[in-house]
Amino acid sequence: MRIAIDAMGGDHAPQAAVEGAVSAAREWADITVILVGDTDRLQPLLQGNKPANLELRHASETIEADDEPVKAVRRKKDASMVVAGRMVKEKEADAMISAGNTGALMTTGLLVVGRIPGIERPALAPMLPTTDGEGILALDLGANMDATANQLVQYAIMGSLYRSKVHGLHEPRVGLLNVGTEAMKGNEVAKAAFPLLEQAPIRFVGNVESRDVLRKPCDVVVCDGFAGNIMLKSMEGTASVIFSALKEEFTRTWYTKLAAAIVKKGLGQFRKKLDYTEHGAAPLLGIDGLVLKSHGSSNALAFKNAVRQARLALKNDLVGSISTEIRNGSEL
Amino acid sequence: MRIAIDAMGGDHAPQAAVEGAVSAAREWADITVILVGDTDRLQPLLQGNKPANLELRHASETIEADDEPVKAVRRKKDASMVVAGRMVKEKEADAMISAGNTGALMTTGLLVVGRIPGIERPALAPMLPTTDGEGILALDLGANMDATANQLVQYAIMGSLYRSKVHGLHEPRVGLLNVGTEAMKGNEVAKAAFPLLEQAPIRFVGNVESRDVLRKPCDVVVCDGFAGNIMLKSMEGTASVIFSALKEEFTRTWYTKLAAAIVKKGLGQFRKKLDYTEHGAAPLLGIDGLVLKSHGSSNALAFKNAVRQARLALKNDLVGSISTEIRNGSEL
Repeated sequence: MRIAIDAMGGDHAPQAAVEGAVSAAREWADITVILVGDTDRLQPLLQGNKPANLELRHASETIEADDEPVKAVRRKKDASMVVAGRMVKEKEADAMISAGNTGALMTTGLLVVGRIPGIERPALAPMLPTTDGEGILALDLGANMDATANQLVQYAIMGSLYRSKVHGLHEPRVGLLNVGTEAMKGNEVAKAAFPLLEQAPIRFVGNVESRDVLRKPCDVVVCDGFAGNIMLKSMEGTASVIFSALKEEFTRTWYTKLAAAIVKKGLGQFRKKLDYTEHGAAPLLGIDGLVLKSHGSSNALAFKNAVRQARLALKNDLVGSISTEIRNGSEL
Repeated sequence: MRIAIDAMGGDHAPQAAVEGAVSAAREWADITVILVGDTDRLQPLLQGNKPANLELRHASETIEADDEPVKAVRRKKDASMVVAGRMVKEKEADAMISAGNTGALMTTGLLVVGRIPGIERPALAPMLPTTDGEGILALDLGANMDATANQLVQYAIMGSLYRSKVHGLHEPRVGLLNVGTEAMKGNEVAKAAFPLLEQAPIRFVGNVESRDVLRKPCDVVVCDGFAGNIMLKSMEGTASVIFSALKEEFTRTWYTKLAAAIVKKGLGQFRKKLDYTEHGAAPLLGIDGLVLKSHGSSNALAFKNAVRQARLALKNDLVGSISTEIRNGSEL
């Protein structure tokens, strides 16, 4: 299993990627980690401390966080992210991980690696936080703004396979993001998707309301990228406003500061549960090769965890399973 | 100005409606309040204490909270809500207020009162809470799941007129709910709506993200009913989860209970700000007559406040202004 890491992407590049890669290579002897980036910068960070199953691949360019995604991927042919994508395409690597520009990574997936035959649209599938700390896989969270009913069904199949292959869940429960739990609720796309999801080779548990998502009514929730983004950012915005108000109240006087000191630990643990950056890398599902998006703020541990996810997905042939399931579906 | 109140709708019917109506009739001599409902039940509640500008209108039926909206409005022709709608239609009343079944009220607006000529779809426009306590008018919040770009423009015009006519805002700022602030963001409908909103006779301030809505980036936010519902319920769900966690932490031990006692008042005030039931009745805009939806849990004060809103909207000819603006727009 060969896992390429875009060493130049993310807020703490390349240091975090290098440290994470070394630590992952040490932990798992059955993988080879390939750091893709400016070798002049990567080499010194290894400090002659390179495990045998860690390789370097030079790439002279870098895609920046504020680069326009499609343009950057087309023009910067020797960017670390694009080179890693090409390695997956050409079977020099089985998976790639990047903490860089999300739009550019989706473009790399689509244009450099390519889709699984039969998949209409790939989907970005992060774990959203839930109150039990386990999370819920949500897709699509931003790869495509609009989705047809059939695309939502493909998301459901891919998300379900991811949860079973990578997280080991038995028959994960799949819900459809909607405005009510009754079958005929929703916009035209949701109403058309509902009966198709009932027929799909998944455990469909019906509509779920955004109000309940944090309480984990299911293991996978499908939605178009527009609604998914509105949901995620509404949650983030509300949490941020409430925690700001708490902070303000807790620093208002000396005795509210005392109150803060008392509950600080408990609330801190709870807030951490709600922090979606804690929930690992998000797969870009539907791509004909494994592509994982690590959070921009990823540290070494986050990179190592992304390698862990990639390794599990490869061992359990996630991409092959999606391909088989989609082919079977289209033959029905 | 004649304002009809569906006395049988809401959790505290008919008591709350009667008390609110009496108090409103006493406060404003320039209006007549008409309580519509079962006069056998309403009369005793008035206790011979009826202001001269308060009238009763008998209606023998009631639409229940769990009635199927369209069926109920079609079959229960003598329901208090439907009778109030018919009074608006036949100019026996200038406005109607109901705290009853929301779907049935939207159906009453559409089928009994009817749309303003030129309006494609009416929109339900509640105030969402904001951190400054003032709120933001959001539409559509549930009357129609899907919306075209042109319908979003009509929502923008109606919402803008409501904020200026009823809330007295000068040139209210109108935003488009979207996934990013740049012009070309969003799904197909949002991308098509953006340039139309730039041309519309409103003060368009561009895209707003759901993450920022609570911080009031504008005075009116337009969206389709599906996205609006996802946003609102994501906010509610997140707030509910966080306040539950706070409560749990605050009751965990005797010293966290002490902490709770210290910050209780400050947090209570903040939570109240975030409670959208505090923000008055929601107009159903685009209907050819004034229709206001009061929250199901409305007490007497909420009914009185809804009358206050109706009176302002009538004094400033909200419905006529919408009609004129839409007519002008279609003549361009």
